Amino acid sequence: MSNKAIDASIASLSALSFGELYNSDFLLTWDRSPEELRAVLAVSQALKEMRSANISPRIFDSGLAVSLFRDNSTRTRFSFASAANLLGLAVQDLDEGKSQIAHGETVRETAVMISFLSEVIGIRDDMFLGAGHEYMVEVGESLSLAHEAGLLERRPSIVNLQCDRDHPTQSMADLQHLANEFGGVDNLKGKKIAMTWAYSPSYGKPLSVPQGIIGLMTRFGMDVRLAYPEGYNLIPDIETKAAGFARQSGGTFTLSNSMDEAFKDADIVYPKSWAPFHVMQQRTELLRKKDHEGLKTLEQQCLAENRKFIDWECTEEKMKLTREALYMHCLPADISGVSCERGEVAASVFDAQRDATYREAGYKPYVIAAMILLSKVKDPVGLLKRIAAEGKPRSL
Amino acid sequence: MSNKAIDASIASLSALSFGELYNSDFLLTWDRSPEELRAVLAVSQALKEMRSANISPRIFDSGLAVSLFRDNSTRTRFSFASAANLLGLAVQDLDEGKSQIAHGETVRETAVMISFLSEVIGIRDDMFLGAGHEYMVEVGESLSLAHEAGLLERRPSIVNLQCDRDHPTQSMADLQHLANEFGGVDNLKGKKIAMTWAYSPSYGKPLSVPQGIIGLMTRFGMDVRLAYPEGYNLIPDIETKAAGFARQSGGTFTLSNSMDEAFKDADIVYPKSWAPFHVMQQRTELLRKKDHEGLKTLEQQCLAENRKFIDWECTEEKMKLTREALYMHCLPADISGVSCERGEVAASVFDAQRDATYREAGYKPYVIAAMILLSKVKDPVGLLKRIAAEGKPRSL
Amino acid sequence: MSNKAIDASIASLSALSFGELYNSDFLLTWDRSPEELRAVLAVSQALKEMRSANISPRIFDSGLAVSLFRDNSTRTRFSFASAANLLGLAVQDLDEGKSQIAHGETVRETAVMISFLSEVIGIRDDMFLGAGHEYMVEVGESLSLAHEAGLLERRPSIVNLQCDRDHPTQSMADLQHLANEFGGVDNLKGKKIAMTWAYSPSYGKPLSVPQGIIGLMTRFGMDVRLAYPEGYNLIPDIETKAAGFARQSGGTFTLSNSMDEAFKDADIVYPKSWAPFHVMQQRTELLRKKDHEGLKTLEQQCLAENRKFIDWECTEEKMKLTREALYMHCLPADISGVSCERGEVAASVFDAQRDATYREAGYKPYVIAAMILLSKVKDPVGLLKRIAAEGKPRSL
Repeated sequence: MSNKAIDASIASLSALSFGELYNSDFLLTWDRSPEELRAVLAVSQALKEMRSANISPRIFDSGLAVSLFRDNSTRTRFSFASAANLLGLAVQDLDEGKSQIAHGETVRETAVMISFLSEVIGIRDDMFLGAGHEYMVEVGESLSLAHEAGLLERRPSIVNLQCDRDHPTQSMADLQHLANEFGGVDNLKGKKIAMTWAYSPSYGKPLSVPQGIIGLMTRFGMDVRLAYPEGYNLIPDIETKAAGFARQSGGTFTLSNSMDEAFKDADIVYPKSWAPFHVMQQRTELLRKKDHEGLKTLEQQCLAENRKFIDWECTEEKMKLTREALYMHCLPADISGVSCERGEVAASVFDAQRDATYREAGYKPYVIAAMILLSKVKDPVGLLKRIAAEGKPRSL
Repeated sequence: MSNKAIDASIASLSALSFGELYNSDFLLTWDRSPEELRAVLAVSQALKEMRSANISPRIFDSGLAVSLFRDNSTRTRFSFASAANLLGLAVQDLDEGKSQIAHGETVRETAVMISFLSEVIGIRDDMFLGAGHEYMVEVGESLSLAHEAGLLERRPSIVNLQCDRDHPTQSMADLQHLANEFGGVDNLKGKKIAMTWAYSPSYGKPLSVPQGIIGLMTRFGMDVRLAYPEGYNLIPDIETKAAGFARQSGGTFTLSNSMDEAFKDADIVYPKSWAPFHVMQQRTELLRKKDHEGLKTLEQQCLAENRKFIDWECTEEKMKLTREALYMHCLPADISGVSCERGEVAASVFDAQRDATYREAGYKPYVIAAMILLSKVKDPVGLLKRIAAEGKPRSL
Repeated sequence: MSNKAIDASIASLSALSFGELYNSDFLLTWDRSPEELRAVLAVSQALKEMRSANISPRIFDSGLAVSLFRDNSTRTRFSFASAANLLGLAVQDLDEGKSQIAHGETVRETAVMISFLSEVIGIRDDMFLGAGHEYMVEVGESLSLAHEAGLLERRPSIVNLQCDRDHPTQSMADLQHLANEFGGVDNLKGKKIAMTWAYSPSYGKPLSVPQGIIGLMTRFGMDVRLAYPEGYNLIPDIETKAAGFARQSGGTFTLSNSMDEAFKDADIVYPKSWAPFHVMQQRTELLRKKDHEGLKTLEQQCLAENRKFIDWECTEEKMKLTREALYMHCLPADISGVSCERGEVAASVFDAQRDATYREAGYKPYVIAAMILLSKVKDPVGLLKRIAAEGKPRSL
């Protein structure tokens, strides 16, 4: 059996240098070289094409995929479950309680106890600023120690399913979507993408999506425009990082307080609400103290503040400023007149591009599967070729 | 390897016309032709026999089976999980919250987000009269739209695990049970089945079981007698449907307000409690309004009303009216002196036929697996023959 | 492919008489002959070595492993899930509610309803003294009845994942750990093991671990020393049993009220907190009555009583009394200055032997898998040889 699309994806993988992905965790896209990121896309694409061709890329006969969510999430949960299942792993949930922040001995011990026959641990921990990423690093160090001491036959790899800093499975799915919409990653060079804040009648939305987008799209020569109302800035360090990436990749990174400015001539728009960095810092402190009164007051203040920027909505008028831009969203979007009175996007804009947002979401299971596969398989090129050649049907 | 029972089941399937089941949802038995219903029984029987012969009918190497329950249910949950697992699918629960009724955008989006690598969605939604079936239809339409737009590689099929109108996996398991007890579906012609209300010290039990029974058994020429105390009627439209089915199939459908009348000379009795249609309507309204006081009052009224009919109990005396009838129940039954002081059935009656009720329940996993298989496989006759011929062991 | 370690494990199995394990439940180690217990170790070891050699011991193409926990437990839950998955079974949770004690009809019916396509049921029920073991026996009898009546094609076997009397998957993992640390089960003869109470600032910890240890280690000629403060005795009947076992196996069983005495020249120490038998009896009664006030009072009394024995801590000083003993714990341990101010073990002692406790825990998934395999496979020697010879990779 031969399949040109699959063969092309594997060929593009074989041209890349990505050895560092083997036996390592996928925590932040900016820890990864552009070639490694392209390798993830190539494998994700190959897996997607295999599914179209009814070829099963099952690489495990058994093994667990641990899912550790400190947050409810239908989408990411199903994406992780789909990815694990596609490769032959069974999902086992670890329910740690949402608010509890484990440290030290507990983290170290739990990490080992759930890992004796596990291949991957997917973690979502985006509630506390300054905690999610650190937690994943701590789990990873515990696993490495235990593996080196011979206590774990295999070291499970960690996939960051959203932390306080980055949301790499989202941003990489977004990148794959863009690559497919614009004819390849190389064609993204010079494309204008507006990552902007948008109004929402809710508060406390995490920063990881916009941070993930500016931290990733600046790596590929895109013109990245970040726009938000004054005071709604992201983690300063990540904004700085993005500026540096843009310089390195021959792209640009500009920051403004105007949605219109960001939308002007944009090829892609990504209007999405988030809470200001300083609010998330206050919120984290109040959550740690379990200060429910303080949290309520903060929420009220924050919602009132938000309302000042109710016109940060992705309307048809605003879309006219763009070059018939592709609309992106990690979903669910706050759609004006549908999920709320006034929200991030006008119903007509969303309706017109709904399918595109669903297509965008559809890459996530394959991106996660690619991250798992590249972390567990020493010779992915050889293995994928073998799988494609054997052509074992996924469904009879 | 050759197995006569399996071969006979496949042969009976090959004589039927059931092509419409492919790529479609199983929502209501009355949407299905008698041949399609017989096809489900034939496949269910073949799968059951394969299990006896230790042959694995695994048709998927990977894929998700989404389980969406708005209600707790050990039995149906395990049946669905068993069916999915038998065919090679991994169950992933979607926990939407019990009381929330999603509509429109949310349904459409969620339906797609859980379906990128899913083969089947099992839905149980029987809380709200006039909502469960509609919800399933809405999910199905969303899936079809997304599939046609190329957003879903495969369209998962929906299996109704109980809605406000029908409970097809229960009624089809019941039919398979009857076919096996009476020597085939054709032998059911003319058999008298009493589907009667029975007293229970609880309220709010759904109507879908009795509706499912009268809507299905009238299709096969049975003499179906529905009996309930005045005021305890089912959804009127379904009672009408059943009468029509009986006329078409050469059976009868009679309605009375006397348990004794229904039991007279019956071959099969199915005494089971339910709430009156008009109470379920009130309840639905109160639930929507979250009127907890109103719900309590309604419950008290309803329980008091129920108590007037405490003698609607399937006792030994009543069983003497029948032709040593087969006792059926979807379980758990309210057994007098066991699970409650006075209930649907006397302990001695239940004890004598407990095994039969367990056997009845045992068909459900296979019925669900058959529904899944017929909706996903284009040539089930060919596939089942191949599986039987290869004889891959389920357990080494 | 040939692997000496695997071959040796299978050879050791083939020398044993263990036929009674087939088609039976694993509830209490003292229901099992020493050869049967050695068979579990041999299979567990073989499975562990297969995993090291990347050979998949998958024996089921499908089938459910039901997990029934009346208690939260990350460790045992993951061990059971890992074991089931390794053999090819999918875990399905039965969530019965924690406090409810089902009896009679309900147990019988539920047991059958969850078992139509199930191979094993893992039960953890350690909350109520005098209830957990009885519950498992009742489930087992229900399954046997249903199997004999032809209602269950296969009878799932039960694995006790902790009851009020024994914790056999823990104690057997502990035994395998000891066998590996001391060069074989035979080398344990005469080794001194101190199973002692230790202080913890909590109450209500189950007795099943110490009971499991004294009930198992006395079977293999060890010198078992049980020590606890006056009043903290275990179920009397099990202490008596242990004494008898020691006599039969040529070991000893001594009881004292001094941690120092037990630690003197010990080769192994197992310091662990538990609630006194009579407190657990009171607690069980209060729990049944749902007497929350009574439970609070009991807890306060018990904690105050515990504090009198705060020096029952496994310190470096105490460890000096031993022959550089191996420290054991079922985890998580209450570590002084880490998980609590004062606890079961000093941080320095735990730190020095942390890895050993993790290694100890790592045997549990394999022990559970061995129990399942031996209960389901008629000729395990032949099957394991075939699996080893075929060498199907677990991970590509």
